[in-house]
Amino acid sequence: MPKIIDHEKRREQIAEATWRVIVEQGMEGATVRGIAKEAGLSLGALRHYFATQDELLMYAMQLVKERATARIAEISANEKWAPKERITKIFLELLPTNQEKMIEMEVWFAFTVYFRHKKEGFDAQHDGIYAGIRNLLDSADQLNLLRKELDKEMEAEKLYAVIDGLALHAYLEPQRVNGERITEVLEHHLASLFH
Amino acid sequence: MPKIIDHEKRREQIAEATWRVIVEQGMEGATVRGIAKEAGLSLGALRHYFATQDELLMYAMQLVKERATARIAEISANEKWAPKERITKIFLELLPTNQEKMIEMEVWFAFTVYFRHKKEGFDAQHDGIYAGIRNLLDSADQLNLLRKELDKEMEAEKLYAVIDGLALHAYLEPQRVNGERITEVLEHHLASLFH
Repeated sequence: MPKIIDHEKRREQIAEATWRVIVEQGMEGATVRGIAKEAGLSLGALRHYFATQDELLMYAMQLVKERATARIAEISANEKWAPKERITKIFLELLPTNQEKMIEMEVWFAFTVYFRHKKEGFDAQHDGIYAGIRNLLDSADQLNLLRKELDKEMEAEKLYAVIDGLALHAYLEPQRVNGERITEVLEHHLASLFH
Repeated sequence: MPKIIDHEKRREQIAEATWRVIVEQGMEGATVRGIAKEAGLSLGALRHYFATQDELLMYAMQLVKERATARIAEISANEKWAPKERITKIFLELLPTNQEKMIEMEVWFAFTVYFRHKKEGFDAQHDGIYAGIRNLLDSADQLNLLRKELDKEMEAEKLYAVIDGLALHAYLEPQRVNGERITEVLEHHLASLFH
């Protein structure tokens, strides 16, 4: 079904053009017209792939999550790393340590604020990251990697805060808080949980 | 100089009206017209206090910081609390544990994303919170409150991340992460730094 594959590929290209517009101009610039221009399409051609601006924005947001989820699934399945190393790599995947992830972070951040005042749309509460972190700590515990006295629920909440706080600071203060710095801080924190 | 005081008081009231508009409608709603309506003023009367929309928005953002700074200065000067308790209270002041602080947080967050794509304006990098946290940890250390083996620079970065991560989650997931929860997690984290 090459046509369907092309269709999906073109939708992804449009979503990526949307990301670039948001990174450069913020949500104010993310009009259908501006996105069509960035994607090198006519308005009519863009409407063939997305009927409304909201449909396009929701898809562009969803693609951020899909990309991150795919990368994490790949790391999880890779047995060349020992469990502790693999778990560390998964947590690091949640930080914007390179240009690609920084773009995703910026887009996620802009969308979150934008959709906050829409009745329908993206709901941060259901993005599942807290539950994922909680599960990963449970796995680490079953593998006997965690210090015994830890309050796992408390540590999951704190680890989630450390990750999103570092991501926020890398976004707001890229000069002071670069990829190397946030990696170092997260690894330091994980070392305090592992024995 | 009662006239000047009235002028400043009126500017604060307009800034607070701006906050309410932003909390309810996001930055999209924060037009001069919308803010004048919320403040119960004519457009002309509002222009008497703020010549441009950007001047008003910058002032409204600045007021968030001033209010928080004033609260922290008050806690710092209050000697009824022992040093460890006082330091804990200062850090808790940075979290949106009540309605007033949640509004400030929401406004700060909206402004941060909005001003990111403006050439001039608010620069998060200079908001001084990291330096403040670093200084507070130094004070705690001089008072012999901190565990000896701590890497203070690393712990300041991590504590800053915990605080802003919790603030972000309280904003995004108010049902799951309420004021009590973020207080508990921050106190748990501070307990791991103090001896």
